Amino acid sequence: MTDLVKMAELAKKASIKMSALNTDIKNEALKKIAQSLKENKEKIFEANKTDLYSAKTLVNAGEITQSTYNRLKLDENKFQDMVQGVLDVAKLDDPVNKVLLKRELDKNLILEKISCPIGVIGVIFEARPDVISQISSLAIKSGNVVILKGGKEAKETNTSIFNTVKDALSLIPEFPQNVINQIFSREEVSELLQMDKYIDLIIPRGGNSLVKYIKENTKIPVLGHADGICHIFIDKSADKDMTEKICVDAKTQYPSACNSVETILIHKDYPYIKDLIITLKENGVWMKGDEVCQKLIPDIEKATEKDRSTEYGEKTVSIEVLSDVDEAINYINTYGSHHTDSIITNDKTNGNKFCSLVDSAGVYINASTRFADGFRYGFGAEVGISTNKTHARGPVGLEGLTIYKYKLTGAGQIVDDYVKHKKSFTHKTLN
Amino acid sequence: MTDLVKMAELAKKASIKMSALNTDIKNEALKKIAQSLKENKEKIFEANKTDLYSAKTLVNAGEITQSTYNRLKLDENKFQDMVQGVLDVAKLDDPVNKVLLKRELDKNLILEKISCPIGVIGVIFEARPDVISQISSLAIKSGNVVILKGGKEAKETNTSIFNTVKDALSLIPEFPQNVINQIFSREEVSELLQMDKYIDLIIPRGGNSLVKYIKENTKIPVLGHADGICHIFIDKSADKDMTEKICVDAKTQYPSACNSVETILIHKDYPYIKDLIITLKENGVWMKGDEVCQKLIPDIEKATEKDRSTEYGEKTVSIEVLSDVDEAINYINTYGSHHTDSIITNDKTNGNKFCSLVDSAGVYINASTRFADGFRYGFGAEVGISTNKTHARGPVGLEGLTIYKYKLTGAGQIVDDYVKHKKSFTHKTLN
Repeated sequence: MTDLVKMAELAKKASIKMSALNTDIKNEALKKIAQSLKENKEKIFEANKTDLYSAKTLVNAGEITQSTYNRLKLDENKFQDMVQGVLDVAKLDDPVNKVLLKRELDKNLILEKISCPIGVIGVIFEARPDVISQISSLAIKSGNVVILKGGKEAKETNTSIFNTVKDALSLIPEFPQNVINQIFSREEVSELLQMDKYIDLIIPRGGNSLVKYIKENTKIPVLGHADGICHIFIDKSADKDMTEKICVDAKTQYPSACNSVETILIHKDYPYIKDLIITLKENGVWMKGDEVCQKLIPDIEKATEKDRSTEYGEKTVSIEVLSDVDEAINYINTYGSHHTDSIITNDKTNGNKFCSLVDSAGVYINASTRFADGFRYGFGAEVGISTNKTHARGPVGLEGLTIYKYKLTGAGQIVDDYVKHKKSFTHKTLN
Repeated sequence: MTDLVKMAELAKKASIKMSALNTDIKNEALKKIAQSLKENKEKIFEANKTDLYSAKTLVNAGEITQSTYNRLKLDENKFQDMVQGVLDVAKLDDPVNKVLLKRELDKNLILEKISCPIGVIGVIFEARPDVISQISSLAIKSGNVVILKGGKEAKETNTSIFNTVKDALSLIPEFPQNVINQIFSREEVSELLQMDKYIDLIIPRGGNSLVKYIKENTKIPVLGHADGICHIFIDKSADKDMTEKICVDAKTQYPSACNSVETILIHKDYPYIKDLIITLKENGVWMKGDEVCQKLIPDIEKATEKDRSTEYGEKTVSIEVLSDVDEAINYINTYGSHHTDSIITNDKTNGNKFCSLVDSAGVYINASTRFADGFRYGFGAEVGISTNKTHARGPVGLEGLTIYKYKLTGAGQIVDDYVKHKKSFTHKTLN
């Protein structure tokens, strides 16, 4: 038995204990974690310095980007947010043990559908030091066990935060062992991906290639999204100012976010195409366009077929002019990534048609795609954004880390009596 | 492009239209199907005769079992149930377009979580002629598109029912094309399993080896269960009569059902072990037991390690004597299939502990495991029983064929205003 199999087996056992842990102990654990993080602040910053020192060399050698370096760097603000994030999860409702349905099947035969944790979750993420405490908190509150694998650039920081979390949990006698686990190597990740006996869900948090690799190499359900190719369709009736404001926000507010717009589609009869292009240009956006756009403003780069499904992740956007909302819907369903798409319109029928027929996790009318986020939706925290068509879609909060079981409490009932019509079901909903 | 890719692509397109289809048209379609089935009854029975003629040869050659033959055989009762099943689905609530959450994020910025169909579902099933009409009805009501692959023994019957369904749908001008699709060969199944671009969910309905094969050969989410290894734990305090009644029902009422009991665990201090064994024997149950059982009744066959995880599917059961409820919970979580497990007890604490810690889709107190069924739970119809830990668990009804999308209706809001604290979220729940 490898060390990882042993770890996974213990994790599975811990998950049974976690499923029955009461809310008070879970919240106490979260508060202890927040406190320990504060107490170990210096140690964590020291570890982060070590990572940053190695990372600087990699930046200079061109092996990692400056933005990876920036994400890796812990500062006072990020640290405060990290601690506050843990305390915020303590304040959220416990998603476990909720009676989702209560039904009398017959006299003294009561069916309850009760929410419960999923079990053991593998989380694979890239260099961001706040993920360990954030995911650990969400896992604890939802009664799940996690096996965490962070980016190698953040190894010292992650280990320091991981140990802080573990130590904090060990102060609570009722808290089960082996709830928060860490692995380090790529080899362990490939082994983990094969362990469908022990691991119930994999959550990859990172770039497109990480997510694609994971989806292609496991039979375990994967929750997440590979691409974030979001669209805005500007209808004929769209308000000029609103259009420009939303497009600038969706592209420039945080260009590397997955919910930033990548393709702007414009109704051929929208009267202010040229004004929009000028506004985008003034806001530092690089545009690629079709022939119509190029005719309007000659210095726009020509868009190719590949631009139709490119997530730029920077201040670049492709623009196409289309005939109507139906063409836009079809375009988005064909080239999009089913993440978040918005229509700007004053025509309610077109707005609702767009929302009904665009097959995406988020469908918006007159709002920036950047709103696709668990905090902005009021979920308190998010595990990530899913473009799955099963289990959980869109920003996933605590609820997405739960499933349910059916509890049936009887008084000796047998099926034969119902098959032979000696008894019959009442099927009375009780909640 | 192969014919199957073409079919899948058209199915995907049809799924967009289906997602917006209103309830009346869906119900009209179901009524037309029921009517057409009645009108084409003779044709369908003719097709079934052809299948039965070939099947008889296979039974004689020992290639298929008599019970497969019996399942394949359509009779008056099965046909009536089939027609009634379609009409029953028409009566169920439409699971699509339900507002699951309505929240004001800010003034004039309204978030709605709206249920919607999953998309394109591949259903692979073995020889049972009623599956085509049942799954087609559930798919239509939930707004999904299906690609069906039935057992080759039922090819003529399936095709005849399939054509009846298709012809009925073609009578309704508003009903989209390509909603119900059929494939025939194993090669097409393996091709289908690779089409994660078009197929959103696979539902296998059949024996263990079919389900295992599918789970091992696709990246598409699979909804179902391979094994049904259900347990009954008889606690020290269990009532004698109740125990015997439940054990007989759970084992003999329909032994080949997935929710029949396979292993009976008995508390060492339960005083009526011998009586239970005698009762089971009188009811034609073949028992395999541990040493304790063998000492009590010498003619019990010795159980081996393999019996701990065997789904007999017939009137055979393995029996083990254990120390307490904790050992039983651990046993069930280790050797079970997370389907349905029951405790018989007069001790409420043990009952609730069992339900809390047994990690199964169904956890029962004082009731037969045979209750695990969508109709008995009052879901009206079921797609199957799932032992998944994500999306849907236990008997899956119409709701399990849906997911949701987030619709955000704004008035030009942008994220930058909230990041810069010019505006703040209200997060007011409206439903």
